[in-house]
Amino acid sequence: MTGEPSTARVGTLAPVRHPGERLLLAVEERLTQFLRTEWVRWSTVDPRAAVPIQALADLVQAGGKRIRPAFCISGFLAAGGDPEDESIVPAAVALELLHACALIHDDVMDASEWRRGAATVHAKHASVHRERGWRGEPRRFGEGVAILAGDLALTYSDQLMALSPVNPGPLWHELRTELLVGQFLDIATAADGDVDERLCRWIAVVKSGRYTIERPLLIGATIAGRPELAAVFEEYGVALGEAFQLRDDLIDAFGAGPDATGKPTGLDFEQHKMTLLMALAMQRDEQVREANALDVVDPARLRTLMIQTGARAEVEARIDLLVERSRQVLERAPLDPLWRDELTSMAYQVAYRDR
Amino acid sequence: MTGEPSTARVGTLAPVRHPGERLLLAVEERLTQFLRTEWVRWSTVDPRAAVPIQALADLVQAGGKRIRPAFCISGFLAAGGDPEDESIVPAAVALELLHACALIHDDVMDASEWRRGAATVHAKHASVHRERGWRGEPRRFGEGVAILAGDLALTYSDQLMALSPVNPGPLWHELRTELLVGQFLDIATAADGDVDERLCRWIAVVKSGRYTIERPLLIGATIAGRPELAAVFEEYGVALGEAFQLRDDLIDAFGAGPDATGKPTGLDFEQHKMTLLMALAMQRDEQVREANALDVVDPARLRTLMIQTGARAEVEARIDLLVERSRQVLERAPLDPLWRDELTSMAYQVAYRDR
Repeated sequence: MTGEPSTARVGTLAPVRHPGERLLLAVEERLTQFLRTEWVRWSTVDPRAAVPIQALADLVQAGGKRIRPAFCISGFLAAGGDPEDESIVPAAVALELLHACALIHDDVMDASEWRRGAATVHAKHASVHRERGWRGEPRRFGEGVAILAGDLALTYSDQLMALSPVNPGPLWHELRTELLVGQFLDIATAADGDVDERLCRWIAVVKSGRYTIERPLLIGATIAGRPELAAVFEEYGVALGEAFQLRDDLIDAFGAGPDATGKPTGLDFEQHKMTLLMALAMQRDEQVREANALDVVDPARLRTLMIQTGARAEVEARIDLLVERSRQVLERAPLDPLWRDELTSMAYQVAYRDR
Repeated sequence: MTGEPSTARVGTLAPVRHPGERLLLAVEERLTQFLRTEWVRWSTVDPRAAVPIQALADLVQAGGKRIRPAFCISGFLAAGGDPEDESIVPAAVALELLHACALIHDDVMDASEWRRGAATVHAKHASVHRERGWRGEPRRFGEGVAILAGDLALTYSDQLMALSPVNPGPLWHELRTELLVGQFLDIATAADGDVDERLCRWIAVVKSGRYTIERPLLIGATIAGRPELAAVFEEYGVALGEAFQLRDDLIDAFGAGPDATGKPTGLDFEQHKMTLLMALAMQRDEQVREANALDVVDPARLRTLMIQTGARAEVEARIDLLVERSRQVLERAPLDPLWRDELTSMAYQVAYRDR
């Protein structure tokens, strides 16, 4: 995330790209150190006891964009938090661990085999089970590891959030509940195929908008002691969050594939995931409705139809509109100009990313 | 749970069986009301959004022994908490919701079809998917509902625990982490079959002892403001918790079946679950080792071997020893005699229950 280095960065040795970079590095350190401590602790009981922790650590260390920690720290700093004050770090780590839970459990529900360039937790442990000739069903075992690794991530995220100097209470509870309900609507609408544009938008808003941008920003502002920024961050976050999700859908449908994104393209098509892209295309063209109704879909054909019907262009146009809306919100907001620019720059990066 | 009504109960209309009965009723009400509020709230978004909440509510309302809320409230009252003070209620509800998460996720990992006399969450929703002819794999969908319903229960439990007037912090984090690591060791040892008596005891202690008895008692005492009871409750809880788990194993192996317990017997055998009962029998007899090594086990044969080798009798003897140990701990403890008797009575009920 680019932007002018803040004056607080003077004195660091290397040029930094994000004014919160030092805090983001502290998040990485805390994340690694927390998981290492837990790993050591449970390994002493039995080497196997650390397996779900290792699974979680592998996922966290395999990369990820750390978007939620970045917005949490930006919310904290934009609200006047001290860039030297590490009390924001546990909250940012908590958001990343919650995200790890969401990914691990999502991958089971979507039967995804790849994530961040490696086998997903359930796929890897099903293979281990198979290779070693253990008893029972490999799939069942792999999914068991993934369920427990995700549960651990959820529990750890809560343990870390509780270390924040100001309790973000309701915000934190809402964020998690909305995420889970949004995930459920995702699989439910994929199963029964009954979804309209309004519900697609709603799912995008709660599953991505609030969870990825609005609530992390607001948790940061609350911990900095300026919860009155809520209205600004809500407007900015809801608009940009939808743009984030729409880009996600486009990357899944048209992206460069596993080399760039660490996961294959076309998964949403295969799983009949009801994205706004799909909802628009279905509205416009009967061929899309028919193609998507087939049990085994043809991703190449759907991609072509998305372009021919103009659904792809419409989604791109909506992203532009949403980014412009989030920029305008910032323009009117009671923020330091440095942070107005920084949050604008983050909006462009999130909405026009390629992975 | 029997025991003399405490003097604080004078004035209630009906005779009560447990001095904390009024608080236990408040726990039921709060549990029902909390889930109903969430159900209404999410139903207004989309009727499907409330499906995982309904799944959770169905499980909670289908029964359950409420052992953890009972120990939490007993810990609170034994530590001098006021029986009219409902500030203990959210913590007790939180423990029951955490337990609901553990059951729902466990049932997926164990491929269990029945729980509390009804279909398990994943089994029920796989059937719904199949009956309605939805897209995708029924099993995958059913497990998705169960994963998310369990995640919601975990999140809600945390939301309720945060309402406690005294934050039980580390105790609460420990309880959850231990439970999850214990569950993982359960599936790991079932898969690779490599387990000894020491590890079986350890799993029983963390998965049942601490989680079911010690920590709930201690959370209650902490909220009542007497954390110094920790040593007493730890000794009592570890001993009685192991007895609780051993009884669980015996009920699974020899119990009266679904009519009495709401779930079939012999599941541990089928899933190669490494219980202390099994570990002892395997140590004593090669035939048990051979019978358990088979991919498809014969529960009737294993039951006979458990009796013939004396493993069953040894487990019963160990339960007696553990109950006696927990009784002795109470005798020396700085507790009101009423609570000494009440906790002794609870120990007998837990260790000699038939379901």
